[in-house]
Amino acid sequence: MSLLIFIAFLGACMAAAATGAMFGPGRWYDELDKPSWTPPNWLFPVAWTVLYLAIAVAAWRVAMSGSEVLALGLALWALQIALNTLWTPVFFGLQQLFGGLVVLGALWLSVLLTTAAFLAADWLAGLLFIPYLAWVSFAGALNYDIWRRNGDAPSAGATEQRGA
Amino acid sequence: MSLLIFIAFLGACMAAAATGAMFGPGRWYDELDKPSWTPPNWLFPVAWTVLYLAIAVAAWRVAMSGSEVLALGLALWALQIALNTLWTPVFFGLQQLFGGLVVLGALWLSVLLTTAAFLAADWLAGLLFIPYLAWVSFAGALNYDIWRRNGDAPSAGATEQRGA
Repeated sequence: MSLLIFIAFLGACMAAAATGAMFGPGRWYDELDKPSWTPPNWLFPVAWTVLYLAIAVAAWRVAMSGSEVLALGLALWALQIALNTLWTPVFFGLQQLFGGLVVLGALWLSVLLTTAAFLAADWLAGLLFIPYLAWVSFAGALNYDIWRRNGDAPSAGATEQRGA
Repeated sequence: MSLLIFIAFLGACMAAAATGAMFGPGRWYDELDKPSWTPPNWLFPVAWTVLYLAIAVAAWRVAMSGSEVLALGLALWALQIALNTLWTPVFFGLQQLFGGLVVLGALWLSVLLTTAAFLAADWLAGLLFIPYLAWVSFAGALNYDIWRRNGDAPSAGATEQRGA
């Protein structure tokens, strides 16, 4: 059962990761006005691969912990992975910079709460969430700065699709 | 803590539901060749509102159950909500009929496994998942039939965006 639990958490992360493969950056993103501290495109899938592995392992450790905050921790984990899956289609699919910022704000809060619950349940699980919290904070700052610079101006393709 | 757990599950459902509001059916979907048993567009948000409430309550009941399969059930619940969040952007956003079918197949399996784990943890929680399993089965048949009739032929808007 322990293995099945890990596979379920990893599968949820893979569903979230699939959005990155399917709604990746392209001409629209490349042509946006971005701050000088924007990471190169190749860094995102590398960072997310490491982060998804860490958060799947963290969830698995909490699931095995028998802690009193196990149920709360896993409920918050489910919330953050759903928001994580949502962000990429909103930002890259709909090209909604402000919509992406709203989702990222909710994601950041859910990751913070999950980290707190995980630290209470299993300290290593909580530590495994710290890089994720740091990355989502950074991504939020980046999303904010890109929105501030560009407003919400989707490309013709996205507009046509959204209005379809 | 019980209320926070419910809010987390409901929030995850709202993240999944947001995809339906943002990537809704439009001209592209309306013009697809669909079987005679395709439900009217208005039925989908109505059905999903009821289903999301039911599966949030089901998850909350399992989280409160103290059952031995609590952790497995919540891990599977996280998997199905991530896949649920993924389907709409793939089908309506990328207009990938076959891609949608693959996601729906994975979603169906995850809902089946969650239902089984929930039935073992709390019979009412399991029962609350039965309409969801039935609807995803129906949606899978519909997605399959639409793919069979139309192949994968995204509209110009989606193509431009995907290739961007």
